[in-house]
Amino acid sequence: MPKVVFEIEGSKSVEVSCNAGDNLLELARRSNVAIDAPCSGNGSCGKCRVKITAGEVESVPSRHISPEEWEAGWRLSCSCRVSGDCTVFVPDIASAYQSRMKTADLSSPQEIAIFEATKAELRASGIDFSNSYRAVVLTMAPPSPDDTMPDIERLSRALEEATGAARISVPYAVMRSLASELRAHDFSVCVKGELAGDTFRCMELSAPEDTALVGCAIDIGTTTVSMVLTDLQTGRLLAKGSSGNGQIRYGADVINRIIEQGKPGGRKKLQDAIVKETLTPIIANLCRSCGIRAGDILRVSIGGNTTMNHLLVGVDAQSVRMDPYIPSFFGWDGLLAGDLKLPANPTAPVLLAPNIGSYVGGDITAGTLASCIWDRDEMSLFIDLGTNGEIVFGNRDFLMSCACSAGPAFEGGDISCGMRATDGAIEACTIDRETMNPSLTIVGEPGQRCVGICGSGIIDIISELYRCGIINARGLFVREGARVRRDAHGMGRYILATADESETQREISINEVDIDNFIRAKGAIFSAIDTLLKSVDMEVENIDRVYVAGGIGSGINMKNAVNIGMFPDVELEKFRYIGNSSLSGAYAMVISDAANEKLREVAANMTYLELSTHPGYMDAFVAACFLPHTDARLFPHSVQEG
Amino acid sequence: MPKVVFEIEGSKSVEVSCNAGDNLLELARRSNVAIDAPCSGNGSCGKCRVKITAGEVESVPSRHISPEEWEAGWRLSCSCRVSGDCTVFVPDIASAYQSRMKTADLSSPQEIAIFEATKAELRASGIDFSNSYRAVVLTMAPPSPDDTMPDIERLSRALEEATGAARISVPYAVMRSLASELRAHDFSVCVKGELAGDTFRCMELSAPEDTALVGCAIDIGTTTVSMVLTDLQTGRLLAKGSSGNGQIRYGADVINRIIEQGKPGGRKKLQDAIVKETLTPIIANLCRSCGIRAGDILRVSIGGNTTMNHLLVGVDAQSVRMDPYIPSFFGWDGLLAGDLKLPANPTAPVLLAPNIGSYVGGDITAGTLASCIWDRDEMSLFIDLGTNGEIVFGNRDFLMSCACSAGPAFEGGDISCGMRATDGAIEACTIDRETMNPSLTIVGEPGQRCVGICGSGIIDIISELYRCGIINARGLFVREGARVRRDAHGMGRYILATADESETQREISINEVDIDNFIRAKGAIFSAIDTLLKSVDMEVENIDRVYVAGGIGSGINMKNAVNIGMFPDVELEKFRYIGNSSLSGAYAMVISDAANEKLREVAANMTYLELSTHPGYMDAFVAACFLPHTDARLFPHSVQEG
Repeated sequence: MPKVVFEIEGSKSVEVSCNAGDNLLELARRSNVAIDAPCSGNGSCGKCRVKITAGEVESVPSRHISPEEWEAGWRLSCSCRVSGDCTVFVPDIASAYQSRMKTADLSSPQEIAIFEATKAELRASGIDFSNSYRAVVLTMAPPSPDDTMPDIERLSRALEEATGAARISVPYAVMRSLASELRAHDFSVCVKGELAGDTFRCMELSAPEDTALVGCAIDIGTTTVSMVLTDLQTGRLLAKGSSGNGQIRYGADVINRIIEQGKPGGRKKLQDAIVKETLTPIIANLCRSCGIRAGDILRVSIGGNTTMNHLLVGVDAQSVRMDPYIPSFFGWDGLLAGDLKLPANPTAPVLLAPNIGSYVGGDITAGTLASCIWDRDEMSLFIDLGTNGEIVFGNRDFLMSCACSAGPAFEGGDISCGMRATDGAIEACTIDRETMNPSLTIVGEPGQRCVGICGSGIIDIISELYRCGIINARGLFVREGARVRRDAHGMGRYILATADESETQREISINEVDIDNFIRAKGAIFSAIDTLLKSVDMEVENIDRVYVAGGIGSGINMKNAVNIGMFPDVELEKFRYIGNSSLSGAYAMVISDAANEKLREVAANMTYLELSTHPGYMDAFVAACFLPHTDARLFPHSVQEG
Repeated sequence: MPKVVFEIEGSKSVEVSCNAGDNLLELARRSNVAIDAPCSGNGSCGKCRVKITAGEVESVPSRHISPEEWEAGWRLSCSCRVSGDCTVFVPDIASAYQSRMKTADLSSPQEIAIFEATKAELRASGIDFSNSYRAVVLTMAPPSPDDTMPDIERLSRALEEATGAARISVPYAVMRSLASELRAHDFSVCVKGELAGDTFRCMELSAPEDTALVGCAIDIGTTTVSMVLTDLQTGRLLAKGSSGNGQIRYGADVINRIIEQGKPGGRKKLQDAIVKETLTPIIANLCRSCGIRAGDILRVSIGGNTTMNHLLVGVDAQSVRMDPYIPSFFGWDGLLAGDLKLPANPTAPVLLAPNIGSYVGGDITAGTLASCIWDRDEMSLFIDLGTNGEIVFGNRDFLMSCACSAGPAFEGGDISCGMRATDGAIEACTIDRETMNPSLTIVGEPGQRCVGICGSGIIDIISELYRCGIINARGLFVREGARVRRDAHGMGRYILATADESETQREISINEVDIDNFIRAKGAIFSAIDTLLKSVDMEVENIDRVYVAGGIGSGINMKNAVNIGMFPDVELEKFRYIGNSSLSGAYAMVISDAANEKLREVAANMTYLELSTHPGYMDAFVAACFLPHTDARLFPHSVQEG
């Protein structure tokens, strides 16, 4: 059997045996070697590049590998079959799209500000921030010949007295530790639980001085998972972290994952990828980072799209993508952390923000909650730029929503040098019209060299290329120069950093295919907005506010986004970037019972417009696939300097 | 490392490596080789006999091994240390005390009669045999563009209509299978669940023709575990089975097991022994035998003593045996089959018959329920002969109870040739006064040779030895003869079968130590009855009925039991053997909500008398350790033929 050694940049090598003919990408997945393949391994995205440093593999050429690179041993791992022993260098970039786990610095004022702002706005909209979780400290007399109550009765009586509850429920996990915990603390303990109606539901016992009540709010994105731990009593943030969604191995978009989960054993595979491989390590890591016991996490809330919710629960998601596009559930109460074996209290409810359609899910309802547009007189447009694009428009009287398949371009997918907004990503760019030289802003410490381009960077680059007349309205290169190159087929590209300048010793550039992909993505977003407005007989002029949410990053330049016809041409002061609103919404859900109630109400009042069957959408899309638009009158402020 | 081969009679050999100096019994336990050690391996019971057929072990002599047996290689495995490679023959008898799993023949009228009788009596006492479990067959329209409800709403609406419930709860296990089950059966399904108040709690989905609702009633005895599966709609028995309690490896009595569970990792070890090694295989076996899916078991009920209940839940049981003898719980609602990972529906409640004291547990409250003595005007005495002896006395106005540490003699423990009432056990015996020859009744097919003596056999043998004047009131041999032998120390024994006559080629006899052990056991029972009666100012004359329950077997000869002073000397027609009343009570609990309610009421009204600290009990016990009693006037019908 051939032996393959994966030499992972910045990490340990992994040696595995396999069969001759095994696909190299599949082998890496089986061996837990992280290699991104947003296209699911069909060769189109070019993200899964590896370098064969010893031995041989069978492979086929690809437009993503230059002849020089081929000579040096670079291959797309998805297109390689193992033919004998070999050594495979896996560059750091191979998992840059699927970012590694990251615990954010909570001292960062921006990080905290976004949650504080959500809370303040929801409070202003009348949402009370309290919940039913309690830490009750009890001091009891130990049993004696004159006081012969068993432990459980002793505890129940004391709890009834302390909480006023008429009924005390004690689940298995608490019952098991009851005798030993009471005796370990001389019958003085803290009981953590939920006071619901006349019942106090015990969830955790601890030492009397340990009164931590923790909530865990999670945004499950198709690409990225983010979460915060929060104090359920004060709403204070305790820890924040994120990581790539482990399901990305099975496809970058929801459709590929739905197909994967439909194969034998697929539901378990996809569920394990999100629960065991993604959520579990992040939660465990956050607990460690702030000294919280898993058992103290008493409530979990989740904002995820409809497919993510189905895959999380392990329910067949086929109906999401099959006519008549009716998922298995919109809302469902009944999930417990123990069902998923999450590192949290096993009896902790896992609240799922409700879906309202196959492609408008809990991430959007949670985000809409957080935006407070449901409480405004003004007309607001809410745009969530994730792997899909979702739009909500309306005010306190009505809310319309729709989704468009924008693709992963805003998160760096579908772009040859694309990546997420992590260290080394070009997040902003200006171009000198005369010299055509770029000026780049790169995520990371000063001196960080560039690795790739994230969503906000791509917007800037395309807007600047267009403004400077380097590309035309169709995204084709029309000026020549030192920064503009063409390959053997004549395809133009703009060089942002040469191989010498980049971190990866690989040229960082944007080519006509990338630009075309991005124009289609922005076209999908704008045409969805356009169609949604028309469906309620409104126009761009009616928009009072625009909320932009999603992982595209706070660096997004609204002016540039308008310039390329991605967002409607309204006054720039109407725009507001609200970050990961799915996570802010989940945060509100987990700490506030009232926010939870309101969320259900908001979701119930939201109308879903299915674009794919909507007359006029396709035409609107085609019209929007230009810079800025075929109808330039829609973008009076878009500039191409003559 | 030495290699040890266990040659198990009637089974496959097991070969294991170990360290020199390892204890042979411990090694067998670790290797899943069943060898009984009711004394926990302290050398006193002599049950763990094995034969070294090759190699050598280090060992010490024992009174249980004769010089000839020693010469032949017989040893007590608890007293052996491995010194090198060896082969160990493990005779069938080595696990006769801890019986193997057994599925009873349900066509046996006696088996069915005992449950039918319980049901009839409870009905006569006003207990309604209905419960809240329902199988609801639904036929729904599939989703369509005009009917866009998600699966869960579709199901909930249909269930609300069919059951009148205002609220439908759907747990994780059902949610996961919802989409696929609905589609597998074209949206016609059977939903099994519980209708409690205004809520229908879904538990299982199945094909519309599969409407089985199954309950599982279990008696967890210290020595033996028995259970029945029953149809929750009709109360019909579906299967019955029993097996030794796997915890017996850790000690024959509750005290040794409480000590074991107190050691590091002990709670898990003892819990695994009952849950994984005992309950799980029996339930799985019964499901197979009657073609039931585990998920269809929607309710489980358990009659077990206080220690068994604590060990089952995995809660520290130290408080059961420590002053002030107050267990961690009497009653507890909250256990689910999923908590224990039993092969049953994970959301099935596991009802524990309530304990009322450290040594009067759920087996006795369930048994008392089944006996219906709580509904009578007459004064009834209820005696449960298990590994401990428990007594209840009273009528509809009051119920007094107590427990005595009778030891395992009634189940064949503490007796050199003792065994449970399985194939080869002497279950009845008469002795010819002239010839002193015995006439034996042996459990099993005609021609079955004897293996040992079970509880009812021991009562007969001692009663007959006493009646024939072969032993005196102190249990010492006073007549000589061919059947009576004495060892080198002068200890007498009575030979029931010679080595040639027995199944095991080993003499089956009863010796003075056995008789002394048994006299102490019966003395404990009688003195407990005596003390309980006195505590309510009553006498033997006040007893209107005597119910005898327990594993001693239906063959128990009440006349002989009175003859030796074990049971009070009342008219024989007042006695009634009611079998395993803990199991009958659990059966009533599982199928009848009303029986369940009544059980709580009965338990709440039972008074517990702690004998160990009760003045007069010790004197009563000493006085009862004679045949029949030091005060012969208490037993006017006891006969010793002059």
